[in-house]
Amino acid sequence: MNETNEPIANASLEELLGVIRASCPALETERIPLSQAIGRVLREDILASEDQPAFDRSAVDGYAINLDDGSHQFRVVDFLRAGDWRPRDLSHGETIRIATGAALPARNLQVMMQEDVQVENGSCSVLRRTAERNIRMRGEDAHGGDRLIAAGTRITPGVAALLASLGQVNPLVSRLPRVIHFATGDEIVSPENMPAPGQIRDSNSTLIHAFFQTHCIGVTQLRLPEDFDRATAVVATHKAEIEAADLLLFSGGASVGQHDYTSRLLAQLGFTLRVGRTNLRPGRPLIVASQGTRIAFGLPGNPLAHFVGLQVLVHSAIAAFSGFTKPLTRYKGRLVAAVDAGAGPRETLWPAHVRLAGDSTEITLLPWQSSGDLTALATTNAIARIPVGTGILAIDSEVEFFLTDTLP
Amino acid sequence: MNETNEPIANASLEELLGVIRASCPALETERIPLSQAIGRVLREDILASEDQPAFDRSAVDGYAINLDDGSHQFRVVDFLRAGDWRPRDLSHGETIRIATGAALPARNLQVMMQEDVQVENGSCSVLRRTAERNIRMRGEDAHGGDRLIAAGTRITPGVAALLASLGQVNPLVSRLPRVIHFATGDEIVSPENMPAPGQIRDSNSTLIHAFFQTHCIGVTQLRLPEDFDRATAVVATHKAEIEAADLLLFSGGASVGQHDYTSRLLAQLGFTLRVGRTNLRPGRPLIVASQGTRIAFGLPGNPLAHFVGLQVLVHSAIAAFSGFTKPLTRYKGRLVAAVDAGAGPRETLWPAHVRLAGDSTEITLLPWQSSGDLTALATTNAIARIPVGTGILAIDSEVEFFLTDTLP
Repeated sequence: MNETNEPIANASLEELLGVIRASCPALETERIPLSQAIGRVLREDILASEDQPAFDRSAVDGYAINLDDGSHQFRVVDFLRAGDWRPRDLSHGETIRIATGAALPARNLQVMMQEDVQVENGSCSVLRRTAERNIRMRGEDAHGGDRLIAAGTRITPGVAALLASLGQVNPLVSRLPRVIHFATGDEIVSPENMPAPGQIRDSNSTLIHAFFQTHCIGVTQLRLPEDFDRATAVVATHKAEIEAADLLLFSGGASVGQHDYTSRLLAQLGFTLRVGRTNLRPGRPLIVASQGTRIAFGLPGNPLAHFVGLQVLVHSAIAAFSGFTKPLTRYKGRLVAAVDAGAGPRETLWPAHVRLAGDSTEITLLPWQSSGDLTALATTNAIARIPVGTGILAIDSEVEFFLTDTLP
Repeated sequence: MNETNEPIANASLEELLGVIRASCPALETERIPLSQAIGRVLREDILASEDQPAFDRSAVDGYAINLDDGSHQFRVVDFLRAGDWRPRDLSHGETIRIATGAALPARNLQVMMQEDVQVENGSCSVLRRTAERNIRMRGEDAHGGDRLIAAGTRITPGVAALLASLGQVNPLVSRLPRVIHFATGDEIVSPENMPAPGQIRDSNSTLIHAFFQTHCIGVTQLRLPEDFDRATAVVATHKAEIEAADLLLFSGGASVGQHDYTSRLLAQLGFTLRVGRTNLRPGRPLIVASQGTRIAFGLPGNPLAHFVGLQVLVHSAIAAFSGFTKPLTRYKGRLVAAVDAGAGPRETLWPAHVRLAGDSTEITLLPWQSSGDLTALATTNAIARIPVGTGILAIDSEVEFFLTDTLP
C-alpha cells in the first residue's frame, strides 16, 4: 500500500499483488464437518495424537509365531481377525492364525504368509520360511506429537483421509469470503437471449459464477444499469448484502468511459481507490479499491481481459483471504514456437496452453486478436508473463507462467 | 476383455486399464443448465453459429472517421455507446464519438483513441494520427461454422464463458455415473469415534466421498458387516439403488481373507469377475468385475492401496463413463533423489510429489513404509510408475507418473 493514499496510476503486476496482499488478511476461522471441508484451507497444524499405527498390526493374512522359534510344525491355538484384541504370549511350537490388519498378540513375533504354510487339522507345516516379519510396527508411520499437516494446507481428498484417520472430523478452516458481483454495460444481454444488433451476450457473469464455483465459493450476482442514479438505487436496495461482502467485483466498469462510474460507486460505498490503472495488457483500465479488510475490483468488460484479471488478481485475493500458503505459483516453460510480442510498453499477460512433454514444460502462446477474443479460452490453462519491451521471442525461450487450470 | 471369460489372474496396469475401457462406455447424454455444467464433459462439437464478433466493434474509447479522411479537424455528429446500432455513412470531416464495444456505423473506418484528440464544442482536433484502426473486425476471432469446442472437452470456467457467449446455455453433457460404496471390515470405526484396541478409524469412506466430490459426483455410502449372510441382508434392503448403480465400490473387501466375500457378493448381484488379482504394489488383491455396462471394484482396505486404486483405476472408469477424451495422462519427470525400488516382481505405483522446477519436472518418491501409511497422502499429488524388476534408480532417472492433484 502506498503511504500517500494516492492510487497507483500505472501499477505493475508486482505492485498489484502487493496491494492485494496488504488489503486481504486471512479471514476468521470456523470449524466445519470434514465432509464439507474439501477444498477449504486448514488453519491449524495437525499433530499425531498417538503413534501411527497405534499398535503392531499384521500386514498379511498368515500365521504368527515367535521370531526365535525355529520349529517346522506349529499348533494353531487361536484366530485373530482385524478388530480383535487378545494379547497373549506364544509358547514354543504355537502359532496363531491372523488376518491382515489384526493386532499382534505379543512383541517379537513374525507372521508367515498363508501361502508359505500348509494347515491341516489345527497343525501348520512351514513350506517356506523368510526373514520378512510382515508386521506394521506401532509408530512406523508417525509418532504421537509429530506434525502431520501444516496450517495453510488445502484439504484435498488425501488430506481429508489423513484427517479422518486422526479423528479430526471438525477441522479448523478459514471461512469462505462473501462475494458480490455487479455486471454493468447496457449492451450486454443474458446468454439465453439473441443479441440485437450492437449487443453481445454477457459471458462474464457465467465466467465469474464458474470461477467461484471451482473455488467452492458462492457469489451473489447483480446487474447494474449504466445510468449512475439508477445504479445507485439498485445498490441501495442491496445495502446489507453489499456491506457484508468481503470482495466486490465489477465487470465492465473499468474502461475509460466507465472508470468514473465504478470509482464513484465505490467511493459512495466507502472504498478508497488503490489502483486506477495498470501497466498490463490486457487490463490497462482496472480498478482495485479497499475498505478496511474488504477489497473491490473493477475488471474490464472485455472477456479475455476479464479472464486474466480474475485468474491472476481475484484469484490472489481469495487465496490471501483463505490463508492458503501457496497463493499464485510461478512456473517456467519453454516456448514451442517463436512469437513477436510487439516490444510494447506494458507487460503482457498472455493466455497460453502448457503441457509437460518428456520431462520439460512446453508453453504455447494462444493466438488472440484482441482482449475480446473468447475462443482462446477453450484451451487456455495458463497465463504467460511477457515482460515490458519484449520483442521477438525465439523458439525455446524461457517464459514465466501461472496455471489457471489442470494440465492436459 | 479376455474371451474365455476367465478372470485375469495377475493383471498388469495396462490389462486393468483395458478391462476398464472395455467395460465402461460413455454414459447417456443430457442437457443441463450451463450454470450446473462446470466440470462436466461436453458431448457435442460446438460450432460458431455466427461470426465472432458478430459486427465490427470499437476496441477503444475514441472517435471514428473514414480511413481515407486526412482532415485535421472533425465535426462530432453522434455518440455511439455499446449496445447502440445506428448504421450511417460519414462525410468528409465528420467524426462520431464511440465507446469501447460499440458497433461501428459503417465500413472502412478507423477509431482514433480519445487521448490522441482534443475535443471542444463539438469539434475534434487530431493531436496524433496512427495507422491503428482500433476495430475488432467481424469474424476476426471465428467465422460462423468454425468448430470452437470439441466433443469430449471438460467444461472449465473458460469453456463455460465461451459457451455463454455463443448462447449455448443448455449444453449436451454425459450424465453423471451413479455410484454406490460399501465399506467392509469389522475393525473399522467411524472417524469421530475413538478406536478400541485393535480397531482403526475408517478413512477410506472419507477419501471416497472427497474423491467423488472433486469430480462433482454424489455417492451413496453403506457399511457392510463381515458376516456374509448379514451382508447379503443389507444388500437386499438396498436392491433398487444397487441395481441402478453404474459403479460399485467395495473398500477393504479384497484381501485374501475377504476376496471370496466380495466375489460372492458380486456374483450374487450378477457380476462377472474380470480381474481377481493384479501385478501391482500396492493393490495386489484387487477385484474388477462387470455386468453389461456396469463396473465394480474391490479395493484393498489399506489406505494407501485404496488411494492408488481410486486415483488410477476408479478415476479411469469415471473418465470413460463421462466420455472425457483425456482420461489418464502419463507424464514424465526426473527423480530428485536416488531410490532403491527393490527389484520386485510387481510394478509399483508409488505416491509421489511432483513440482515444476525451472523448465523441468521434478518428482520425489514419498517415503511409505507400507500400504497402510496415510501420512504420505498429505503431500501426494502424483503416482509414479516403477516398472517390474526396477532396482536402484539413480538421481535424475526418468520416471512416468500420473497426476492426482494440482501442482504445488
